[in-house]
Amino acid sequence: MKINEIGEFGLIGRIAERFKSLIPQGWEGIGDDCAVIPWGNDRSLAVTTDLLVENVHFLRERITPYDLGYKSLAVNLSDVAAMGAKPVATFLSLGLPAGTVGVEWCDAFFEGYRSFGVPLLGGDTTSSPEGIVINITVLGLAENWRIKRRNAARAGDLIAVTGPLGDSAAGLQAILQHLPPDADTEELIRRHHCPRPHLAEGEWLGAQESVRAMMDVSDGVASDLLHILRASSLAATVRANDIPVSPLLRKTAARKGWDVLEMALAGGEDYVLLLTVDPAHINDLQKRFAERFGHPLYVIGECRTGDPEISYRDTASHFTGFKHF
Amino acid sequence: MKINEIGEFGLIGRIAERFKSLIPQGWEGIGDDCAVIPWGNDRSLAVTTDLLVENVHFLRERITPYDLGYKSLAVNLSDVAAMGAKPVATFLSLGLPAGTVGVEWCDAFFEGYRSFGVPLLGGDTTSSPEGIVINITVLGLAENWRIKRRNAARAGDLIAVTGPLGDSAAGLQAILQHLPPDADTEELIRRHHCPRPHLAEGEWLGAQESVRAMMDVSDGVASDLLHILRASSLAATVRANDIPVSPLLRKTAARKGWDVLEMALAGGEDYVLLLTVDPAHINDLQKRFAERFGHPLYVIGECRTGDPEISYRDTASHFTGFKHF
Repeated sequence: MKINEIGEFGLIGRIAERFKSLIPQGWEGIGDDCAVIPWGNDRSLAVTTDLLVENVHFLRERITPYDLGYKSLAVNLSDVAAMGAKPVATFLSLGLPAGTVGVEWCDAFFEGYRSFGVPLLGGDTTSSPEGIVINITVLGLAENWRIKRRNAARAGDLIAVTGPLGDSAAGLQAILQHLPPDADTEELIRRHHCPRPHLAEGEWLGAQESVRAMMDVSDGVASDLLHILRASSLAATVRANDIPVSPLLRKTAARKGWDVLEMALAGGEDYVLLLTVDPAHINDLQKRFAERFGHPLYVIGECRTGDPEISYRDTASHFTGFKHF
Repeated sequence: MKINEIGEFGLIGRIAERFKSLIPQGWEGIGDDCAVIPWGNDRSLAVTTDLLVENVHFLRERITPYDLGYKSLAVNLSDVAAMGAKPVATFLSLGLPAGTVGVEWCDAFFEGYRSFGVPLLGGDTTSSPEGIVINITVLGLAENWRIKRRNAARAGDLIAVTGPLGDSAAGLQAILQHLPPDADTEELIRRHHCPRPHLAEGEWLGAQESVRAMMDVSDGVASDLLHILRASSLAATVRANDIPVSPLLRKTAARKGWDVLEMALAGGEDYVLLLTVDPAHINDLQKRFAERFGHPLYVIGECRTGDPEISYRDTASHFTGFKHF
């Protein structure tokens, strides 16, 4: 059987099933942004790992080594933030085609990687016959009461995101279409290459009791929200008119004829946080969030009882997320 | 500047230097088999990660998926054993060329991976345009007093290994020379593909006060022992006549005209443990080790004051280890 017949999540399901019986009581394995391992009585380790492969996740000639070092770590830090945890240590494996990547490239890559100030404690370097290969593992730490999981959403919860959606997908589109550089597309490409992981937002939201489920937006809300819905056995309604889109994306999309909503909901790689919130406390949470971070917390829909699926309002379209196989 | 001009260890040195200032007091980063992170008052986490790339670390058509799953985890578990720690959790990233690797291949890979009974808690799966890419991170746990480091050797310490050397290198040679299969070469290839990491030995040696420095043999004693010598600021003498070599390797090498000592000292991938021992307690340690594990602890030389280098007795040859770039 081919892997694309069962898909990435089919494959992960098979693996999770096979290893279930080995996982100690109280430990959490496959199924959330991070695994959770109890650390003493009141804290836990949150652990995530991500593999980035040249020509699948990035094009070497279109991203600077600094940006690649930055983004590779950013996407992992985002997973830790999505649990409400704080990243404390990172591990990096780097496979390099020695003939085409030099020491200067490595120095710039590590400068980008270092910009978050999170320690690199170990790793592995090796040659790679074809493309660059990057694997990062991040350990985060959180008091147990702060940890947010995908399975904690309840019917009636409001669905929110911590930032605008679709800029990263638009940047990728600009790269793939080889658009002639102008200030707007260059800025969208920058947002694709240098997404800001919502680390401070994640830690802060972890401490808010009114926040129930949380994860980060890596494959697009249309796909990622389904993980929360499946884990929590809920359905959801999302209102297209409430999807936050940056003025830059709206303007550029109008000019290029792009489908803004498709980019915002199915594009992925935004690395903002997607969360569900007790509706009784949403006004207070939005107010304090905006005061604290200087940007809004956007409500885009709500959870309801039903089979795990998303109904879209204000649009006739349906959306899917990024497919890995 | 090209990476092979500074080499793997030159590159790692540059990285370690750049991140040194970010590492919290009492944490240990790059420089040993594992990073060490304090866990509560009396225990620490030992963390290691390894990247394996098709056509660099393995040939897909020459290793079964079961063996590849087994070996990929074995080499990481060996690093944890080398610290005197016990592996408690693993994380796996898998890059797969979806067109040429099927679900059955994955199932067999995970069967081999699972054979150690260590939990898989998370990971990442993605497509890969060229070859298979495997990255594993292992977390181990040890009481602080058990942890063995490379920098703890002292002048006068005896140097020992926990098993015979060179079988793995001979197996690799048989693969690369496309030798016609016979029972002897097939068994050497099996030892190359399925090295037994010395997990129980590592945990037990971690609890022995007379054991000072420890690491695992991945690149070959000629190269690996230099890491202990540099970290401990010592020189060493190694006696070629005392290098343990299996009867199978001795017999096959005589038949094929292979250099046994070159394979044993420079071949690598044996994944036995290399340690230094207080000479006052070596007899007692060897006796108890043999009783416990049913195979000997072999003394191959001793540490002495001097610049980090190895003098070889009983041979005119000098040896180097496996080069990654």
